[in-house]
Amino acid sequence: MQTVSTTPLTVVANTIRGLALDAIDACNSGHPGLPLGCAEIFAVLYGRFLNHNPLNPKWAGRDRFILSAGHGSMGLYASLHIAGFEVNLDDLKAFRTLHSITPGHPECRETPGVETTTGPLGQGVATAVGMALAAKHLGARLHSPSAHQVVALAGDGCMMEGICSEASSLAGHLKLDNLILIYDSNDICLDGPTTECFTEDVGARYRAYGWNVTLIDGHNIDQIEQALESARSQTEKPSLIIAKTTIGKGSPTYQGSSEAHGKAFGKEESSATKSALGLPSDALFFVPDEVKTFFSNRIKIQTNRPPESSNHLQNTMSEETLNTIRITEVKPGLATRAISQALLQVIHDHCPSVIGGSADLSCSDSTLMKTGGILSADNYGARNIKYGVREFAMAAASSGLALEGLRPFCGTFLVFSDYMKNAVRLAALMRLPVIYQFTHDSFLLGEDGPTHQPVEHLAALRAMPTLTVFRPADTNETKAAWIAALSANSPTALVLTRQGINDTLTTSIDGALKGGYIVIRESDGPLDYSLIATGSELSLAVGCAAALTAKGHNCRVISLPSFEVFDAQSKEYQNEVLGNAAQTVSIEAQSSFGWHKYIGREGIAISIDRFGLSAPAKDLAQHFGFTVPAILNRLGVS
Amino acid sequence: MQTVSTTPLTVVANTIRGLALDAIDACNSGHPGLPLGCAEIFAVLYGRFLNHNPLNPKWAGRDRFILSAGHGSMGLYASLHIAGFEVNLDDLKAFRTLHSITPGHPECRETPGVETTTGPLGQGVATAVGMALAAKHLGARLHSPSAHQVVALAGDGCMMEGICSEASSLAGHLKLDNLILIYDSNDICLDGPTTECFTEDVGARYRAYGWNVTLIDGHNIDQIEQALESARSQTEKPSLIIAKTTIGKGSPTYQGSSEAHGKAFGKEESSATKSALGLPSDALFFVPDEVKTFFSNRIKIQTNRPPESSNHLQNTMSEETLNTIRITEVKPGLATRAISQALLQVIHDHCPSVIGGSADLSCSDSTLMKTGGILSADNYGARNIKYGVREFAMAAASSGLALEGLRPFCGTFLVFSDYMKNAVRLAALMRLPVIYQFTHDSFLLGEDGPTHQPVEHLAALRAMPTLTVFRPADTNETKAAWIAALSANSPTALVLTRQGINDTLTTSIDGALKGGYIVIRESDGPLDYSLIATGSELSLAVGCAAALTAKGHNCRVISLPSFEVFDAQSKEYQNEVLGNAAQTVSIEAQSSFGWHKYIGREGIAISIDRFGLSAPAKDLAQHFGFTVPAILNRLGVS
Repeated sequence: MQTVSTTPLTVVANTIRGLALDAIDACNSGHPGLPLGCAEIFAVLYGRFLNHNPLNPKWAGRDRFILSAGHGSMGLYASLHIAGFEVNLDDLKAFRTLHSITPGHPECRETPGVETTTGPLGQGVATAVGMALAAKHLGARLHSPSAHQVVALAGDGCMMEGICSEASSLAGHLKLDNLILIYDSNDICLDGPTTECFTEDVGARYRAYGWNVTLIDGHNIDQIEQALESARSQTEKPSLIIAKTTIGKGSPTYQGSSEAHGKAFGKEESSATKSALGLPSDALFFVPDEVKTFFSNRIKIQTNRPPESSNHLQNTMSEETLNTIRITEVKPGLATRAISQALLQVIHDHCPSVIGGSADLSCSDSTLMKTGGILSADNYGARNIKYGVREFAMAAASSGLALEGLRPFCGTFLVFSDYMKNAVRLAALMRLPVIYQFTHDSFLLGEDGPTHQPVEHLAALRAMPTLTVFRPADTNETKAAWIAALSANSPTALVLTRQGINDTLTTSIDGALKGGYIVIRESDGPLDYSLIATGSELSLAVGCAAALTAKGHNCRVISLPSFEVFDAQSKEYQNEVLGNAAQTVSIEAQSSFGWHKYIGREGIAISIDRFGLSAPAKDLAQHFGFTVPAILNRLGVS
Repeated sequence: MQTVSTTPLTVVANTIRGLALDAIDACNSGHPGLPLGCAEIFAVLYGRFLNHNPLNPKWAGRDRFILSAGHGSMGLYASLHIAGFEVNLDDLKAFRTLHSITPGHPECRETPGVETTTGPLGQGVATAVGMALAAKHLGARLHSPSAHQVVALAGDGCMMEGICSEASSLAGHLKLDNLILIYDSNDICLDGPTTECFTEDVGARYRAYGWNVTLIDGHNIDQIEQALESARSQTEKPSLIIAKTTIGKGSPTYQGSSEAHGKAFGKEESSATKSALGLPSDALFFVPDEVKTFFSNRIKIQTNRPPESSNHLQNTMSEETLNTIRITEVKPGLATRAISQALLQVIHDHCPSVIGGSADLSCSDSTLMKTGGILSADNYGARNIKYGVREFAMAAASSGLALEGLRPFCGTFLVFSDYMKNAVRLAALMRLPVIYQFTHDSFLLGEDGPTHQPVEHLAALRAMPTLTVFRPADTNETKAAWIAALSANSPTALVLTRQGINDTLTTSIDGALKGGYIVIRESDGPLDYSLIATGSELSLAVGCAAALTAKGHNCRVISLPSFEVFDAQSKEYQNEVLGNAAQTVSIEAQSSFGWHKYIGREGIAISIDRFGLSAPAKDLAQHFGFTVPAILNRLGVS
């Protein structure tokens, strides 16, 4: 075995390289380019800079590290391993295999020391912004300024993504001086040199956002350390460290080329790389003794740190709180967005961990907490966040807030859920209790027209695993939706109307909490029609039932505010609610896509399976057949 | 009536203001803030700067104007009206009413002179980038450099959106000197002053992208004109004109406040505004004679312009071309992404208007046309576009290419369709023949794990109106998908595998072109099982059928590569294909959401209704039950 005779952090860096190569070769899959290119950065972070406690990875005072360029996961796993987190050699050997704690991209639910789930590019940066904001907010609320840093590592891909721009602009605006973004600038992206697609001056761009910017040699340990320490002491501005690196550094064949990015090198090239790095070329998963010693000494220091005072606000909801929501009085006939806003004022007062904001639509999506103040660099303790017109960053930052123990909500129009979709998905994958308030939920928003009228969006959200979607019909059901959302340990989308609705006398909070229930029960005898509706169409269904009953038909009306919650009930309950009508009809001012699960192949979907139009809601209801006579006509009843 | 005694373009500007106020008051809905704030900009654009022909709004040589801040539609409609486009006073009076040509946000299919559909913020800028790129590309291909400019007007909202950042970075990289972006900088967004959310230095940011940046008084006609003319003569760089304006300019009560943004002022305030502007306060929809004269003179000049040489490449597909695709030989067993790539080489040679690119994944999403060259500022005629990791801008720019008569495709992983969703939606609303190549289409992509494994994405795309989704099973069906996509006058999503597939001997191009068809027909006698599958699961269904048949069950196998195309067939054909089995089963490695339309309430969906896992595909197929034995087990057959 060769002896290693370089300075410790260089050895640490090369150890990370070797571990990454071996793990990637073992499964013949993965991305060596970043682990090799950023090995010195990982070495400085885990070997010197980050304050954390490997034996207590959730220690409140820890510095957070987010690998936004999630494909470099093996760099992170190797670092966690040598730093003493519960990621052992067998875990590294099981990289990318079934049920390992080392999945292809970092997942915070799987691996100790992984702060957030990353992979979809750019989002780690925005989530880091949310985490840095959470630290500022909690520090202000608890009168105990946090001392920890939030450090994100991003590649060229992240820096090209719009969400990263949005989040960085917001971070500059909010003067998040506890945020450090390391940009792994290696001039190579997956498809080739960045000269072919990305030639802007990133440093100048970040200075324009109000950031402090430093340029360093990303393989120079002193420069990395100096830049990080200087960033830690920075005030008033977030810091961007542009680290010039060589992708796949150390590989004789692939370094500096896009070929290093995303495939296993194989035994031969990995051996050659190890040789070139002064590592034993024939040993697999090799950690030199000096690296082990280095980190066992470091752990002793780390685990002796005084705890940062707990950063917790009460974030589980008491029965009393939920009861307060139940008994809140709300004026009848309001839009469900307005009902929600009325409840939000109560929630503000009773749920200290609730914080939220809107993508520049708070006065329209009804998300403002009137006594919550506007969060700013001068007032981090305020509870309304003005995200600006940055939906995607808003959603990913909300995940960051939730990861720090807050209960965030965020709002925009339902149609713009498209802009933030993948961040909602990551929140669902992480099971974070983020609440999305999506208003203006159908063509009945009227004049703004088809660009603003959602059609397929409920289907798109309902199809997403782990996300619970609620489209409440009135005050009772909006209360149920908020109660469910505040009680959940996974994300919830509240889908709300712009227009005023009619309260239905027979709705109930407890019924809605089952996802679906009978609102009007048929008379004895065979059931002619089951009408299933959600949201603003429930009162229309009730109107249809009245008209059908008047004509001698036996009708049931079912409210189905949440498919997911209803599907989670017993099969008996589901069948009992859905019943066995001669004709089952769904009424929802959205695409019919997904409804046949309840209405069957022969069911009739009163829906809109085309884009909307710009006109007053009343005219559109006529035009698209969302009136009692039009529906009776569709049913062949005259 | 008062006389108006100011310089003509000021009168034009105030006329636009008056028309906007009256139209918005008439429907009691809309956004006066921008039309009033940008009236001088509209006046200079339509009164002096833009070369176009109101009587031939599709004249190839015209300057293109895109209102990215689409909520300011009345500023555009008023300008089109006075400039002599076919937007008459009755159209303005019908603003935001059913079937008018003046919908709430501009829609290019509805209104002469509207170049693209806008409203969802930021996208107009990215589409403008695509249009400017198309001009460069066509100029190079046809050896006839275009002289026209592409001018976009964006507000603070657009400038905050990530897509705008992505597109602007790309435009700077590609040196689109035919692109002018006017930034209506009024320091106010919907929710209040921009000081609360948006304090970056936008000019510095754009200089960092490689743009030319000018700051002007947006109400000073000379400055506007000078800045535009200087931008027109700019070479090598796109131009940003930061126009400082006052939102709602002219309104005694609302100007300079976010209240001016999005509501009708009402008769009283509108009258007061008109008075303040020197317009007759009591006249509605007033156009002064001098404005009429001004524009009738201008039309004479405009309509006498020499035509810019036609910018067309052949973009309808001949039978011969489609036939060439049919008879192309492809190696068996390839991944459908690889089959697609093989076809793409043929398409490149036979379809001159096809141009495309990828969000930095061409070597993985298989979109490279090998002899197409890489498009760059030095080679605008090349046919592969390197969009960088900018999915959303890529999709919106593709719409811009399509609007200019090209047949663009663009590629990324299916999971990242999330990032570009709303641009796909706008393409669908515009019925643009954009082709999206979405690869890595299920958890069977394997090791990259749940962040990269689509689950709900097929449902989300299928639910979208006007978009046609194809998930082909093999070579025949991939050919059918491309033939359909190239023949369509609306967008198509091709959903393709990463992993190799098994060709099924009984698939057919013509069957797939019907969206769904029988691949294996049952024997005589009662039908026990109908197995409906798509894509890589078709061969699995065939395997299940063989196993079931061996056990004495009578089986049919149906391939359903496109729900939308199948749904467009006659009801008879649909029923004939679906048959009437004792048990209908769908097999697709995605969410079951939407399948019950075909399998009914009692059907069995072999699906994945949770997030995936990181592991080799084979292990995941076992784990998630996508094997013949597991499926037989689900069917209770042993």
